[in-house]
Amino acid sequence: MSAEVPTSWFVEAPRNLDLVGLDADDTLWETEGGFQDIASRFEALMAPYLLADAVAGAHLDDVERRNLAVFGYGVKGFTLSMIETAIMLSDGAVGGDDIARILDWSREMLGNALEPYPGVTEALALLARTGLRRSIITKGDLFEQETKVAASGLSEWVDGVEILPEKDLAHYNAVLRRWGVDPARFVMIGNSVRSDILPVLELGGWAIWVPSVNQWIHEVAEPPLDHPRFAVAASLGSAVELIGR
Amino acid sequence: MSAEVPTSWFVEAPRNLDLVGLDADDTLWETEGGFQDIASRFEALMAPYLLADAVAGAHLDDVERRNLAVFGYGVKGFTLSMIETAIMLSDGAVGGDDIARILDWSREMLGNALEPYPGVTEALALLARTGLRRSIITKGDLFEQETKVAASGLSEWVDGVEILPEKDLAHYNAVLRRWGVDPARFVMIGNSVRSDILPVLELGGWAIWVPSVNQWIHEVAEPPLDHPRFAVAASLGSAVELIGR
Repeated sequence: MSAEVPTSWFVEAPRNLDLVGLDADDTLWETEGGFQDIASRFEALMAPYLLADAVAGAHLDDVERRNLAVFGYGVKGFTLSMIETAIMLSDGAVGGDDIARILDWSREMLGNALEPYPGVTEALALLARTGLRRSIITKGDLFEQETKVAASGLSEWVDGVEILPEKDLAHYNAVLRRWGVDPARFVMIGNSVRSDILPVLELGGWAIWVPSVNQWIHEVAEPPLDHPRFAVAASLGSAVELIGR
Repeated sequence: MSAEVPTSWFVEAPRNLDLVGLDADDTLWETEGGFQDIASRFEALMAPYLLADAVAGAHLDDVERRNLAVFGYGVKGFTLSMIETAIMLSDGAVGGDDIARILDWSREMLGNALEPYPGVTEALALLARTGLRRSIITKGDLFEQETKVAASGLSEWVDGVEILPEKDLAHYNAVLRRWGVDPARFVMIGNSVRSDILPVLELGGWAIWVPSVNQWIHEVAEPPLDHPRFAVAASLGSAVELIGR
């Protein structure tokens, strides 16, 4: 996908930056592909229970979207949504063995070896040399995210890790207050226009979009290509170059 | 339970305190009773599947303990553990309707109206008048805990909310660094000896135990009654009096 996106630059180079925010899932490492893989397995598991034209994946998306307000983000909520969808689509006939398989997938996802994208460690090393403060800013399940950050080995390259229940104005504001940083001196780098870009621009900050191959359907939003404090980069390395100039 | 605990006092009154940490679940409001209620309903649900001498609750405790390392704390992990136990105890024969009932319980628990214990608001108002900084410090699922703090209406009485994946030395240390507070100037108030008392004393801080009526079995530990920086209080109000003198 990143090859199809026109690279745009800041209208003016950001000056006097103080803090760089780094999204984690699908920016530092791949996550969404794993969810999509499990969703495909779920469709296959459900096939014997379904009428010919029912699509398990679409039902799962609906249930998941509805459950976000109750369960929040993460593997555990996703697993509960799969189980709920399985019961619903099978009219209660789903077997205990099939539910057990779904539970096994959740353990598999949570135990996945976590490999940063190629070039990420080098980009973070380069960023460290700018002298700017750096924090991972990610949303989702606290336990899952903290486990992933630890498994990635990347925490040595940042000054902090912020895990938020939602990436909205209020939570970005709270982070910047905690760090004592003016929004105009903050830049966020991430793959989600909705979570990493739009609220930060609204707050008066800078944002660099690094599009990912897989994009979660609930995160899709139009990139604000004409915004003066917005830029697109093909990789984290390119993003670091944009602010390190 | 609190009536049976001998009230002990600090050997010396703490001086120059700078930050008061407040546990949330079962200190500011009741939580464990809700889990125990659902566990009882789970036992009743499982009864038809069980041989006469099998005890569903004990199996659930085992599965839950094992899953803590994968799922962390909170309703979602507890729900997945109930589903796993149901499949195991029924040898896969558990019906979709019964699993659906377990899912309904999780939504019920997450949507529970949240009422602070009697006297808690008054105690927090009193604490605010001491001029000490105050933070809720709780462990568990980020989304669930943040929802509960918001629903409690208590956040206006504190300067911050810290939600940790685990209440251990490393995480208390990180909190105190963030607040710029020396452990010797920190006091923690909570109902769990294992999570609220022992790590804080080990760090060099002060701790006040407010025993709760219901105690989660995984949190039980011996209170260090002879420790010079440890005190027991029958209520949050009494705990505040101990440090406000």
